[in-house]
Amino acid sequence: MTQIGLGYLYPGDDVAIEKHRSRQGGLGKAAMLDRELALVESNLRRVLSSDVGLLHTAADLLVRAGGKRLRPTILLLAYHAAGGARAAEDTRGAVSLATAVELLHTASLVHDDINDHSELRRGQATINALWGNSLALLVGDFVFVRLLGLLATCSPRAIQILGDCCTAVVEGETLQMLHRGDWNVTEALYLGIVHKKTASLFAACGELGAVAADGTEEQIAALAEYGENLGVAFQIQDDTLDLVGEREALGKPVSLDLEQGSVGLAAQYALEHEAGAVEILRAGHRAQVTRLLQESGALAYAAQRAGAFVERARSALAVLPDSQARDELRGLADYVVVRDR
Amino acid sequence: MTQIGLGYLYPGDDVAIEKHRSRQGGLGKAAMLDRELALVESNLRRVLSSDVGLLHTAADLLVRAGGKRLRPTILLLAYHAAGGARAAEDTRGAVSLATAVELLHTASLVHDDINDHSELRRGQATINALWGNSLALLVGDFVFVRLLGLLATCSPRAIQILGDCCTAVVEGETLQMLHRGDWNVTEALYLGIVHKKTASLFAACGELGAVAADGTEEQIAALAEYGENLGVAFQIQDDTLDLVGEREALGKPVSLDLEQGSVGLAAQYALEHEAGAVEILRAGHRAQVTRLLQESGALAYAAQRAGAFVERARSALAVLPDSQARDELRGLADYVVVRDR
Repeated sequence: MTQIGLGYLYPGDDVAIEKHRSRQGGLGKAAMLDRELALVESNLRRVLSSDVGLLHTAADLLVRAGGKRLRPTILLLAYHAAGGARAAEDTRGAVSLATAVELLHTASLVHDDINDHSELRRGQATINALWGNSLALLVGDFVFVRLLGLLATCSPRAIQILGDCCTAVVEGETLQMLHRGDWNVTEALYLGIVHKKTASLFAACGELGAVAADGTEEQIAALAEYGENLGVAFQIQDDTLDLVGEREALGKPVSLDLEQGSVGLAAQYALEHEAGAVEILRAGHRAQVTRLLQESGALAYAAQRAGAFVERARSALAVLPDSQARDELRGLADYVVVRDR
Repeated sequence: MTQIGLGYLYPGDDVAIEKHRSRQGGLGKAAMLDRELALVESNLRRVLSSDVGLLHTAADLLVRAGGKRLRPTILLLAYHAAGGARAAEDTRGAVSLATAVELLHTASLVHDDINDHSELRRGQATINALWGNSLALLVGDFVFVRLLGLLATCSPRAIQILGDCCTAVVEGETLQMLHRGDWNVTEALYLGIVHKKTASLFAACGELGAVAADGTEEQIAALAEYGENLGVAFQIQDDTLDLVGEREALGKPVSLDLEQGSVGLAAQYALEHEAGAVEILRAGHRAQVTRLLQESGALAYAAQRAGAFVERARSALAVLPDSQARDELRGLADYVVVRDR
């Protein structure tokens, strides 16, 4: 359990998701899902077009860099797992919502990159790096406001879920910002922030898919719980990889999070259990940070906690009827565990 | 016509609006409107509450600084002018929309203040001045996302209007940002930006009020046109007052807009018709700027153009049946003309 990246999904790791899909015989089998994801893609291009050249160009860059659309995928799988698409025209609402959650995610990344002074995302220059903070702020606003039009065809309940989720994301980002440089963050506070800033959107994806499918209340609650727990596991692992993932040369500051004074679960554990941890994390030298996290048991602890959340996500699926979509959701959780980086 | 501030409404000038209301016998007579505006106020406080202390505090400051709620007032007057409130419970939708437009306006001000490096608004420190740009960005996001929940009870058409309006506002702000420091802005470009960034929201207020009232298509179009034209007049005068209003001591840079390289209609006219205008505007000394704008006929021209838009706004009301609300809307336009600063 002390190994790094014992298999939790890393956000934006599109190649790995693709491999997973192939390995499983995969999502490729679900021709319906592929068609729906293609509709999400064309929706994104349509709603993000603008006669203001810069907004159009920026949005186009964002859409093209966008990867495999994990959040829309979860939403659409939840939709099918809860019995959606009984009639062909049913799908439209779910596809609109899948587009909306991707817009929300994308807008929040654009604003995050401003606040994190990030210059690169997925190997591409960020919007703030390309056009400066002022225009990036407006690009983020643009991406976000474009989701309003998509809500016109959605049910009041779906709108409310999305609204609550947006609130939680912003509250979570704010809490994280307020605790930058706070080396005394507790596990409870860390998890509270993660629930708001990350898991709320994953939960909304599960819940919205089930609501769009007109699933039972039990199914809706189960898929929300699936998303919530998957989201927490996802973020714990993301934070761990940010500290010790194989992405930086030795001797460089290992992590943007650490530079920003943001503490993930592994770092939080080390700070709580190992004297001198704060100095090592502050200095931020890769080899020393990795050794600290391994020797203190912090990596093992974070992996075990993430694994427990993955298990809860899998268990939540038990109330759903057998379906390929449910298998896919379970596969996504399995994959998160077996992944070797 | 060369006088300054010949009577166009200045945004945020709450005292003057209050005087106008008293002078007219006023909005005070419309007890129903006052009740609805009180509901907007309590809605704002309710939806902007948060268990994240900073967001709660910031939102509270914004609500308390908020003034007389011109946009909700226009929306609610349009609602009544189009025959709304046939039953008591009818009003709820209009009040939700009135709250939503105020949230949109407030969120855009918070983000504008970041991009304009503004430290003061209505005599209060701005959010960015109090907590820095990163948190202010999140406060603006928070205010904006809180409007989503209000949409859950609104009609698809209302949601679409609001979504289109949000898009126009962000596009307008972006165009303005892209043309900062551009001293060759044409009148057509200036008006194009004003239509998007300001008039679109005023138009949406008229349109949304009429839609919430289940007005006829003719009434809906008329109230949208009223708002659109009032919004353009409003912004022209706002830009003029920013240049020559009685708010700064002589010899100081007269205007934040000018400092930012943003050109209003009067400045645009002077630049087009007066050699040497660019140097005077760049230097930004109050007395010289005022003389330039007076002697070139720029102030007279801007006042005449604003007056023409006010006239169009008044004319648009002609198709509406007689009502106190229609009189109030006309009074708002009258007031814009007779105001002496």
